Amino acid sequence: MDHDPPSEAPAHSFDLDAPVFALHRGGKIEVRPTVSVNDRRTLSLAYTPGVADVCLAIAEDPSLVDEFTWRQNVVAVITDGSAVLGLGDIGGPAGLPVMEGKALLFRNFAGLDAVPILLDTNDVDRIVDTIAAIAPSFGGINLEDISAPRCFEIERRLQDLLDIPVFHDDQHGTAIVVLAALINAALVVGRPMESMRVVIVGAGAAGMAISDALLGAGVADLTVVDRGGIVETSRDLTPVKAELAARTNAAGRTGGLDVAMAGADVFIGVSAASVPEELVATMAPGAIVFALANPVPEIAPEVAQRHAVVVATGRSDYPNQINNVLAFPGVFKGALSARATRITPGMTHAAALAIAAVVEKDDLAADFIIPSVFDEQVAHAVAKAVAKAAVADGVVRGRR
Amino acid sequence: MDHDPPSEAPAHSFDLDAPVFALHRGGKIEVRPTVSVNDRRTLSLAYTPGVADVCLAIAEDPSLVDEFTWRQNVVAVITDGSAVLGLGDIGGPAGLPVMEGKALLFRNFAGLDAVPILLDTNDVDRIVDTIAAIAPSFGGINLEDISAPRCFEIERRLQDLLDIPVFHDDQHGTAIVVLAALINAALVVGRPMESMRVVIVGAGAAGMAISDALLGAGVADLTVVDRGGIVETSRDLTPVKAELAARTNAAGRTGGLDVAMAGADVFIGVSAASVPEELVATMAPGAIVFALANPVPEIAPEVAQRHAVVVATGRSDYPNQINNVLAFPGVFKGALSARATRITPGMTHAAALAIAAVVEKDDLAADFIIPSVFDEQVAHAVAKAVAKAAVADGVVRGRR
Repeated sequence: MDHDPPSEAPAHSFDLDAPVFALHRGGKIEVRPTVSVNDRRTLSLAYTPGVADVCLAIAEDPSLVDEFTWRQNVVAVITDGSAVLGLGDIGGPAGLPVMEGKALLFRNFAGLDAVPILLDTNDVDRIVDTIAAIAPSFGGINLEDISAPRCFEIERRLQDLLDIPVFHDDQHGTAIVVLAALINAALVVGRPMESMRVVIVGAGAAGMAISDALLGAGVADLTVVDRGGIVETSRDLTPVKAELAARTNAAGRTGGLDVAMAGADVFIGVSAASVPEELVATMAPGAIVFALANPVPEIAPEVAQRHAVVVATGRSDYPNQINNVLAFPGVFKGALSARATRITPGMTHAAALAIAAVVEKDDLAADFIIPSVFDEQVAHAVAKAVAKAAVADGVVRGRR
Repeated sequence: MDHDPPSEAPAHSFDLDAPVFALHRGGKIEVRPTVSVNDRRTLSLAYTPGVADVCLAIAEDPSLVDEFTWRQNVVAVITDGSAVLGLGDIGGPAGLPVMEGKALLFRNFAGLDAVPILLDTNDVDRIVDTIAAIAPSFGGINLEDISAPRCFEIERRLQDLLDIPVFHDDQHGTAIVVLAALINAALVVGRPMESMRVVIVGAGAAGMAISDALLGAGVADLTVVDRGGIVETSRDLTPVKAELAARTNAAGRTGGLDVAMAGADVFIGVSAASVPEELVATMAPGAIVFALANPVPEIAPEVAQRHAVVVATGRSDYPNQINNVLAFPGVFKGALSARATRITPGMTHAAALAIAAVVEKDDLAADFIIPSVFDEQVAHAVAKAVAKAAVADGVVRGRR
């Protein structure tokens, strides 16, 4: 005998009447006209037959698309839903509230138009092919919440194919803000960053990009730790991690987190790991701790404070919030306004310096190393620095 | 010796200071937030960490995506730029001003969010694969300005793959408005449409769909003419046109436009052909002429009027403007609000009836067979009729 399907609505584990659901009801973004079309004359200009002249002009001179369409102001926020926040592979549609949130922030902080695109595939080849096929729609591409190590190959292949910026925010957005925070933390403790011993826990998208950003900024003694311990050349590693091992751990350490942390000056956590207080206590005097796991930091800030001079987290309810929103709006604003064809290490480094410089030297303190996410100067300063670096790096398309 | 590249800006054939260019400068649409995020509390709800609850709820019950994201209100307006207006294959970017215009109209007339997507390929397989891969981003897909016969296969294959509406507006949008106009024109001339002899000139996207719509509405004697003359079974035809020949031309006519038009009651032009007055003069008494080529109709309305009772064009400066904007906003509004999985012939037929019915019987006249494109009742009436037909046809997804 067949069972009748349940006639009642399914029970949810969530209270759909909670404030957070009220805020998301119907979504958080919309598409609106910027011109008023309310009579035959404006309709005949905005649409047929008048629009034909604009189309033909662009067909004749493709660079006019930047001037007479919205494209050069549009960022695609693209995910396959494989690594949404810390929630894992929940799929594109379940990740859409994050992508809409990102689109909202692109508008609020940088005046950009961002469009969420959800991919119905986790296959690297198909993702690359799909994004390349729709790329003419956009001025830039923000890859989002795509799991490692696929994210590295996807970004690299797309950037090779396309002449618009491709930027995986989970990598480079995080790295920019971490570098900005570390620049200012080094000023607070009064020691050059280049001479510090740095430990990064987590070798995913963020850990990889932070490693590259710090190496690029002159950090010489950098050790990365993943679930298997210190990432070093004697281990049996994936190709991506083997490359990481080759360019980090100059001191040749082997072993676990305890070995890495003993005597370290800087701890940067970008994993969901929990780090016991005893290990933090083994760090060098004047230590810096960035415990960035969300919502639960690797080390409680109250605990870290007993052993470190500067403590930062990803949370808004503690000082020194390290949040990507300080980077991505200004990075794309600068790249798109400069008509950049890619985002170079020089541009991300410039972005980090610009964020750090927003904190006035007189205001700099152990509990104020990074600007507020609501500081309106940040996106503007970042955009200006990124555009300048794009020109310096010679990665801008010609203008009419 | 190498030549120096020209150092001056290229000369354009267009006056970029003309009003039409001023209206398009910077584009015609934008993405904006619908919620205000200006303090730590709202930021922590709209973005991390609060947004995680909404993501997890959707992961648990995928139907919640309709409720807590913008998706069920979003239409992708997708083109490969192969048949933009009457301008031919000018490519996606040159077609973007049209797609933005369409997005603007979707918002103005139906409150929908529309996103232009430009494809960097004309290959049918790659187009189908690309659109299928990004389909989770949208509530419906409006294919636009894709050339025949590729458009037929692309639409059919996508609709087979996806459980959201796929609608090629150049086909069905045009067919809906033509059918609406013909329903009212038949009332004006006082003869049932079913008994009329109809000639369609043009066997592209629009001609095909109009043929199907009229056959579905009961027209028995329908002849289609393309550049090679009457589309009939003795000719050497492409597969798509061979099928068209099999289901039209019941009277078995052969020959050219002159044969088709002699004694015809209705002429529908959806080509760039020019039809001489002598041929219009051979039509039956009380003739109906829809000369829809834009901007130059197949027959000048002033000329057609000498031989026909009802004359319609695609132009806004003559009475009886047949314009897709009467159909597509309401069709998608109705389909999305009903959570339709496809747009059936029943739904397009209902849309045509709804448009025709907006013209009050007392107002109906030879120069008023179709509502104004600015009549706000139209999209509302169409949406209601389409949603009802979707339910009647059993093509709606379940709700929570």
